[in-house]
Amino acid sequence: MQAILASTSTLFGQDYLEYLLPVIPELFKDINEILFIPYARPGGISHEEYTSHAATAFGKIGIQVCGIHEFNDHHKAVREAKGIFTGGGNTFLLVSELYRNKVMPVLRDVVLEGTPYMGTSAGTNIAGLSMQTTNDMPIVYPPSFKTLGLIPVNINPHYLDPDPDSKHKGETRETRIKEFHRLNSQPVIGLRESSWLELKDNKVTLKGSLQARIFEKDKVPFEVETETDLSDLN
Amino acid sequence: MQAILASTSTLFGQDYLEYLLPVIPELFKDINEILFIPYARPGGISHEEYTSHAATAFGKIGIQVCGIHEFNDHHKAVREAKGIFTGGGNTFLLVSELYRNKVMPVLRDVVLEGTPYMGTSAGTNIAGLSMQTTNDMPIVYPPSFKTLGLIPVNINPHYLDPDPDSKHKGETRETRIKEFHRLNSQPVIGLRESSWLELKDNKVTLKGSLQARIFEKDKVPFEVETETDLSDLN
Repeated sequence: MQAILASTSTLFGQDYLEYLLPVIPELFKDINEILFIPYARPGGISHEEYTSHAATAFGKIGIQVCGIHEFNDHHKAVREAKGIFTGGGNTFLLVSELYRNKVMPVLRDVVLEGTPYMGTSAGTNIAGLSMQTTNDMPIVYPPSFKTLGLIPVNINPHYLDPDPDSKHKGETRETRIKEFHRLNSQPVIGLRESSWLELKDNKVTLKGSLQARIFEKDKVPFEVETETDLSDLN
Repeated sequence: MQAILASTSTLFGQDYLEYLLPVIPELFKDINEILFIPYARPGGISHEEYTSHAATAFGKIGIQVCGIHEFNDHHKAVREAKGIFTGGGNTFLLVSELYRNKVMPVLRDVVLEGTPYMGTSAGTNIAGLSMQTTNDMPIVYPPSFKTLGLIPVNINPHYLDPDPDSKHKGETRETRIKEFHRLNSQPVIGLRESSWLELKDNKVTLKGSLQARIFEKDKVPFEVETETDLSDLN
């Protein structure tokens, strides 16, 4: 299994995928064309427009991009792809479309069999056991919250530390994850923007410049440093 | 129909329900005992503990509180209640429990028939057509996202304006609601903390000191002043 699971596609003040371009060529080695899954439609943009953004970014490192919506048979497109990138947006929409187009099981199969996979935000969220630690609004009702389960944990992308000066009384991210753990047992990786998980063979490593925050049921959350091996987290 | 639908239970630096205590007696007029629905369990607290918080607050205005979990027949408890308050917490959990305990339809019926209702946060969210503009994490899979539909709109409680200084790249609340409107047509009321909707007979009025933000599909969002009559929003 080879994957990059990034918290966000874009860092403040940077271009789309800019901070990941140096590490993508190692993942998509000797691959000149990848399949892009634009189902999550950030801000409601069209599949075409979203694919064009991805193509611009990947063009900078000499990789062509095809949108899955350009194929009649989405299942077959995934089966035959040399590499796959799922972009961010709304996770409920992404998961609904993955099920509706019968892509969820085949996507899991090909990634486990070795097709290199990259996800950002919602595309990273679906790599965990379920989408139940997404930050998104439930704009559509998916047939299930279960996702790819490439790793035996859940991921919270765009992890945000509580603001000590905030007077807002909505739940903090940490409180939300605590509520998740009242009903679910898998660990949650709070992945801050600019961090990503590298999956290489059977190893899971935290990458990027920041720490990540690990939440385990009935335990005090703790920080892990970049380059930490998280393979045993389950 | 008589209801108070508040964005939040608690304002910064205040006690639970403190800012609402002056207006609650008018809603629960001549009522000395109300039914509390603690299903949403904020932070995962127990039904007992949550009900005890509510009882403390309502005790200050001479109203007793019974938790719905104290009854064998939740359906009957709702049917016979003189007044009902649904507290905040996780909306997915609240909606799941409302369906599991067969409370959703009867709760709608009694409120439409005149039983005074108060909601805060998740308890307010369910008064709209669907829970699809909640901010909460999908910690449990409800059988449906449809809710009470007391008013023909959706509500976004704890509405938060974008922070112009933020470097965080997660979606703003406004972007999330825009994504909602790509797939759904009802207006959304962004209800800021300290605001509430007053439902009195067939009139819906914005109350509290702040403006609310109204989102309609394919239109530019706009602000409405407190005391605005929102009865025609649909």
